[in-house]
Amino acid sequence: MVKRKLETCFSPALFEKDQHTDSIVVIIDVFRASSAICNAFANGASSIIPVSTVDEAKEYKSKGFLVAAERDGFVLDFADFGNSPFNFTNEKVGGKTIAYSTTNGTGIINQASAAHTIVIGSFLNLSALSAWIISQEKDVLLFCAGWKNRFNIEDTVCAGAYAGKLMGSGHFSTICDSTLAAIDIWTLAEPDLPGYIEKAAQRSRLRDKKLDDCIGFCLTRDVSDKIPVIRNGILVELNAIS
Amino acid sequence: MVKRKLETCFSPALFEKDQHTDSIVVIIDVFRASSAICNAFANGASSIIPVSTVDEAKEYKSKGFLVAAERDGFVLDFADFGNSPFNFTNEKVGGKTIAYSTTNGTGIINQASAAHTIVIGSFLNLSALSAWIISQEKDVLLFCAGWKNRFNIEDTVCAGAYAGKLMGSGHFSTICDSTLAAIDIWTLAEPDLPGYIEKAAQRSRLRDKKLDDCIGFCLTRDVSDKIPVIRNGILVELNAIS
Repeated sequence: MVKRKLETCFSPALFEKDQHTDSIVVIIDVFRASSAICNAFANGASSIIPVSTVDEAKEYKSKGFLVAAERDGFVLDFADFGNSPFNFTNEKVGGKTIAYSTTNGTGIINQASAAHTIVIGSFLNLSALSAWIISQEKDVLLFCAGWKNRFNIEDTVCAGAYAGKLMGSGHFSTICDSTLAAIDIWTLAEPDLPGYIEKAAQRSRLRDKKLDDCIGFCLTRDVSDKIPVIRNGILVELNAIS
Repeated sequence: MVKRKLETCFSPALFEKDQHTDSIVVIIDVFRASSAICNAFANGASSIIPVSTVDEAKEYKSKGFLVAAERDGFVLDFADFGNSPFNFTNEKVGGKTIAYSTTNGTGIINQASAAHTIVIGSFLNLSALSAWIISQEKDVLLFCAGWKNRFNIEDTVCAGAYAGKLMGSGHFSTICDSTLAAIDIWTLAEPDLPGYIEKAAQRSRLRDKKLDDCIGFCLTRDVSDKIPVIRNGILVELNAIS
């Protein structure tokens, strides 16, 4: 059996554009975009439009879309709510299309646009997404969003959790040092994930902005079996279309 | 006491040029440039000129310099020897100036040229360089050379060893996730460093090219108390000039 290739990229600045055209790319942004998107689909959202600029978000609002938009942790005045996963309740998002403002996320989706498939990964859908990936005949890139192009701990730990599951399936091999390091960090973190994540810089930033109420939730495994996938630039739920 | 800032950069592609102008930058390229350079000074080399192109290396040769030059693991025909630390014996390099061909290394030295001080770190001079850094009143960046802009395990482990010593001194603080991850990886690796490094991609590459005889040496701590430092673009030994 030929094993599929597993790689990990720790930052958008390290992404190698031409390397993953036939791969599944898993975008991981634990605090908080990936977790918010996964929770939105868990709560019945119909689709999510990633939006990069404030003007674009405003335009979607004027067209009647629900809009999730923050800048530096503050909800923009025209938006319906901010980017915390807790905002994406069934009451608010069930059956709806949401314009989700995320400069970083939109940039990463564009970077990875040549990939075979782009999916959103978080702790919330770890087992479901891993199982689906294992069922596909594709190489995989775990693409950590990082923070301002920097390596970050929370996305690395989550990539390590995915890498552990994929390598454990026996269908993958890796010669990627980032993947091996991520697995080691996940192994260290797993026994007390919230305790381990305490030292992450983004953990402190969210605490300083009083946006850290959702941290525990973002670190919870297998809350959802929904797999957000990009189709024509828009996030939809995989099983809703296949 | 105001603590000094400690940061780690995992790849030249992640280097933030304007952030380290008043810092000590420690360049770490364990396999093999940092180790070769440290061993050259341990064996009495007078200075090392980092050279980026083959033509430039040839020019130094024609001027009578000793030249260390490889491409893809093969010693260039006009060179005196390759880039293995074992070539830099006292018999060959004692009292001499060596032109050292390293595309990656020269690029990194140029990237970091705005720093207050650039030094070369490896396992070989871990304690001596750490002690000197602690004695200075400067912020520090541990700058991993990586491999073709990718994160690599061996430089990360070495950065973690430095970070552990610096944080242990009580003079530094860090909010840098890369530094915290490097320390964790070093903690995992320390009990059996050669065993841990077995999985590194560069370990396999060197084995495939039969260039891995020096691996054990490159992972040996405190072989030398010499500190290679850049002065006017040239590597010299710190104590020889101060």
